[in-house]
Amino acid sequence: MTIKEDVKKMKSAAPFLAASTIDDRNSALKLIAQALKENSEKIFAANKLDTDKAEADNISQAVMKRLKFNEGKLEDCIKGIEQLISLPDPIGHTTLSRDLDEGLSLYRVTCPIGVIGVIFEARPDALIQISTLCIKSGNCAILKGGKETSNTNRELFDIIHEAVIKAGLPEDSLLLAQSHAEIDELLECHSYVDLLIPRGSNAFVQYIMNNTKIPVMGHADGICHIYVDTDADRDKAIKVIIDAKTQYTAVCNAVETLLVNREIASDFLPILAKALKEHGVKIRGTREVSDMIEAETIGDDGFIEYLDLIVSVKLVDNVDEAIGHINRFGSHHTDSIITENKETAERFMQMVDSASVYCNCSTRFADGFRYGFGAEVGVSTGKIHARGPVGLEGLVTYKYKLYGNGHIVDDYASGRKQFHFRDK
Amino acid sequence: MTIKEDVKKMKSAAPFLAASTIDDRNSALKLIAQALKENSEKIFAANKLDTDKAEADNISQAVMKRLKFNEGKLEDCIKGIEQLISLPDPIGHTTLSRDLDEGLSLYRVTCPIGVIGVIFEARPDALIQISTLCIKSGNCAILKGGKETSNTNRELFDIIHEAVIKAGLPEDSLLLAQSHAEIDELLECHSYVDLLIPRGSNAFVQYIMNNTKIPVMGHADGICHIYVDTDADRDKAIKVIIDAKTQYTAVCNAVETLLVNREIASDFLPILAKALKEHGVKIRGTREVSDMIEAETIGDDGFIEYLDLIVSVKLVDNVDEAIGHINRFGSHHTDSIITENKETAERFMQMVDSASVYCNCSTRFADGFRYGFGAEVGVSTGKIHARGPVGLEGLVTYKYKLYGNGHIVDDYASGRKQFHFRDK
Repeated sequence: MTIKEDVKKMKSAAPFLAASTIDDRNSALKLIAQALKENSEKIFAANKLDTDKAEADNISQAVMKRLKFNEGKLEDCIKGIEQLISLPDPIGHTTLSRDLDEGLSLYRVTCPIGVIGVIFEARPDALIQISTLCIKSGNCAILKGGKETSNTNRELFDIIHEAVIKAGLPEDSLLLAQSHAEIDELLECHSYVDLLIPRGSNAFVQYIMNNTKIPVMGHADGICHIYVDTDADRDKAIKVIIDAKTQYTAVCNAVETLLVNREIASDFLPILAKALKEHGVKIRGTREVSDMIEAETIGDDGFIEYLDLIVSVKLVDNVDEAIGHINRFGSHHTDSIITENKETAERFMQMVDSASVYCNCSTRFADGFRYGFGAEVGVSTGKIHARGPVGLEGLVTYKYKLYGNGHIVDDYASGRKQFHFRDK
Repeated sequence: MTIKEDVKKMKSAAPFLAASTIDDRNSALKLIAQALKENSEKIFAANKLDTDKAEADNISQAVMKRLKFNEGKLEDCIKGIEQLISLPDPIGHTTLSRDLDEGLSLYRVTCPIGVIGVIFEARPDALIQISTLCIKSGNCAILKGGKETSNTNRELFDIIHEAVIKAGLPEDSLLLAQSHAEIDELLECHSYVDLLIPRGSNAFVQYIMNNTKIPVMGHADGICHIYVDTDADRDKAIKVIIDAKTQYTAVCNAVETLLVNREIASDFLPILAKALKEHGVKIRGTREVSDMIEAETIGDDGFIEYLDLIVSVKLVDNVDEAIGHINRFGSHHTDSIITENKETAERFMQMVDSASVYCNCSTRFADGFRYGFGAEVGVSTGKIHARGPVGLEGLVTYKYKLYGNGHIVDDYASGRKQFHFRDK
């Protein structure tokens, strides 16, 4: 059996999952939480196989931290599921209710997207978060995790899948893709898959985007900016920059480029350089910057995503030049201004064309958990459909339902009848 | 100057149009309506050049009717603009307002998509509708109409463009693409264009979808179905089918396949055949159907889009088989059930995976004007972003705005502070 055949079966099951009640879906989530608790030893044993292999392969400590699935992480996951159960049903909401004419009623009702493929990094908690978000929103999910956690993923998937079936939801609601080759097969399934959410490296996400007809939601790179304005509080600026650059460097919402107003550069750059040095951050800057502080000189092509303890610095004349730079060189992910001037802040918040725009806070806040969405399936830098951190709301679409009594268009086209459009 | 350079300039202008007030955008619409009235003679003269050329080229009467722009059509367009002015501003709405913690406030605010390219058929009223929808929603628009109306389009565009500038909106808010070669150039502009909306033939839309990295909204084909249930009112069924097939055949929401419950086939098919014949509609059907009434026999690959006075007919055992056929062979556009049984109707409305699902009415109602949206830029069969007829709401996205006071993530990651998530 190829994955294509599995996905085809899933497509047929999708309307049944979409038609399930919120009670069925919540009871599946409860059964999942319970089964995860009851089978914790089996999960940890499977995870040990993965971490032993990783250790033998000399995998870095940072990655190892992600692979490891322990009591603490399991508890966090179960808390997350409980939070998800408490959230209202995202599907079946009537968002428009309008009489077009006597006896002809139009409704717009939210419904699941259908079949969603999520390709995610080697992090066991990701499998739990994504599958439960999809179940809550009535979407079938094809899950493909990183190979470094394949034993843990298989164990987690089996536990979750069994609970879903036990709750009376369709068997084909969830599918685990195991081999990397299956990704290419999945990319061909545009007749059956409604949405792909790839998470991972820039190159990987680009590959997915360029090789499928399926709509893709996510982000390739995260080139986030902080602009330090003339009216910035210097202490806040330094505190926010250090957090945005060093709190976790390997993530898409870490800052990569600092734009500093030229007027304050001679005062601010030395303080900035000192603080960055203390935190082990190397500076790359334009010629002007490297003339003022210790920095490697870069050109216009130097404003890249480092995911490391490196940051680019450039001087700008004013907020408009900062906005222009961000809109041109940024990745429309998350950008922040540091200023005490409300007018300047508003101009930045209005004109920067990014999913998240911030004032006086760290770019690292761009995250579904920190926005209070419970969890996220990914962060979208696209503007079509969901933007920014994507939780339950990004996993639904809607359909129009029209109820008539033998109504035909010719009556209206000929002028025999008129629409009256009354919202209810 | 290539179109790419124009589009790049437009991308820079987009945040300025997005920041314009609703008063500025409405006054642009008022100036457009006024200028169209004042320049009607010039428009009709330009249109005569197009229709004279079309006549010399022996273009069909149906197409000629679309090309022709006269007093009546101008009046309808002006009425449409007045309706658009009366609609509330679709941008700048706060759809989420949440304190994440003391002094850290998150807002989700609707905003324009940015730069939208619309490629539309040879119909002068389309240019007016699309450009005014984009101006109202604060989006820059690249307009490419059919070559058969190039003189009319140029005249209309100049009038509209001048009014937009007079209202103080950016000069680069609108752009007219004239040559077909410019379409291919436009498809390459994924750094500057946020959305493409192609309207036209299946092959053309497929070509666009397959040859660009820009998100595409629209529909390739419209294979709409009507299912006639055992509990159908036969008179309603015939009336609705005749309307859906013959009221306007060359459109995406015309019905192409009829599914008839096997139980009523021997009674219903002869009545259906008679009514269709009277309206000049040819029947193609499965072997079973062609054994019962006069019909050309088709196989599983025969359920296609005709856009003509031809219809496919198939028998099914029950509503579930009808749903299965529609979800497999349909184009997720618009499908209708004819039944007096509420339970059967609800199953169909719930399980059919289409943008519009109808009960006891004609598929031809699937249209922005008939839904009371004022106008539409297109009909979407995609599930990501806007679905069904797309009016103002489909032309906006949102951004997250976060205001802090030096807030950093490390305070929360370390446990020194906790989020409190209070919706306002």
